Amino acid sequence: MTRPSHLEVSRMTMEYATRYRTRSHLPPDAGTPYFVEKGMGDRAHLFGDLITVYAGGEQTGNTFNFFTCEGPKGKIIPAHLHADTYEVFFVTQGAVRLFVEDLEGRQQEKLLTSGDFGFVPRNCPHAYRIERHHSQIVGVAARPGGTFERFFESLGTPTDELGLPAAPYVPAPDRFGTVPQRYDVRFLPDHEWRV
Amino acid sequence: MTRPSHLEVSRMTMEYATRYRTRSHLPPDAGTPYFVEKGMGDRAHLFGDLITVYAGGEQTGNTFNFFTCEGPKGKIIPAHLHADTYEVFFVTQGAVRLFVEDLEGRQQEKLLTSGDFGFVPRNCPHAYRIERHHSQIVGVAARPGGTFERFFESLGTPTDELGLPAAPYVPAPDRFGTVPQRYDVRFLPDHEWRV
Repeated sequence: MTRPSHLEVSRMTMEYATRYRTRSHLPPDAGTPYFVEKGMGDRAHLFGDLITVYAGGEQTGNTFNFFTCEGPKGKIIPAHLHADTYEVFFVTQGAVRLFVEDLEGRQQEKLLTSGDFGFVPRNCPHAYRIERHHSQIVGVAARPGGTFERFFESLGTPTDELGLPAAPYVPAPDRFGTVPQRYDVRFLPDHEWRV
Repeated sequence: MTRPSHLEVSRMTMEYATRYRTRSHLPPDAGTPYFVEKGMGDRAHLFGDLITVYAGGEQTGNTFNFFTCEGPKGKIIPAHLHADTYEVFFVTQGAVRLFVEDLEGRQQEKLLTSGDFGFVPRNCPHAYRIERHHSQIVGVAARPGGTFERFFESLGTPTDELGLPAAPYVPAPDRFGTVPQRYDVRFLPDHEWRV
């Protein structure tokens, strides 16, 4: 293949074969500038949600990731924490209630709408509930030297679809015993939100 | 001051004194969960733009930052690069044309509208031009062990205002010789975009 001219590069939407997808708009390495049109990141279904990864450890030199999460108005997701990972919740559409507990056990919740921001430090239990259909959360997360964006397709399933799952994707029970800890995710089945 | 009850915490919008602001919604340390309503991050004016910081090194254990940039439809900003810093441009409103050059000198540009994503690896020259009024870019950036979000108020100026600068804030010329390098920013005055 001949190298594309500058003009061709400027008009193309590049696709790459990566370790995660046969066709991805995310390059497999950290030195390549790239663009991803809305919705066209690496997609996964987990329960009722669509997670779309736009950047992860391979692209950022393991400094941070960038993904979106969309889901139906519904139940609160299971409480969990990340022992070493800091996480941003930035709502761009709809309304999402974020629940978070600090390191001293004090709980807070807040309804976030478009443009509102929530921050969850490492080791803080948290959960959220989507309170309007067609809501979207932008997520950014990192621990020193690593990122967890492939958790969603590892516990859930990769998809080429652009929308929410037609039916919720429920992981096999044994997956909960092996997958979360690889991505610094710890579910807290006995956790209660008092707020 | 007595410690607020859980209910009070859940209803409050906390304010903190930090090294950057006498009143900030960003806590001064990395262990505190927090919420910031739309527009209420730490704000700065630089040229015609409003930059709003929602999280930075102090909150994320120096792993990444999260900020927004809003500006009028206008001229392309000066080309620059970050020798060690990876940077995300995610457009949430309007239209922004992102220009980026890869490590081999190939240039690309793309018009990003709401939901579109662009990624600039370290050491890659880049610039952008806001092409619609009321556009907004979400930025995330990091280098291993550090972040640059206070560049904007160090070259520009902190502000309590919520909107764009009434008149552009133009830094004194000598500031360009001292501030950018403290934040891994290098301007490229002779750079030309051929795309």
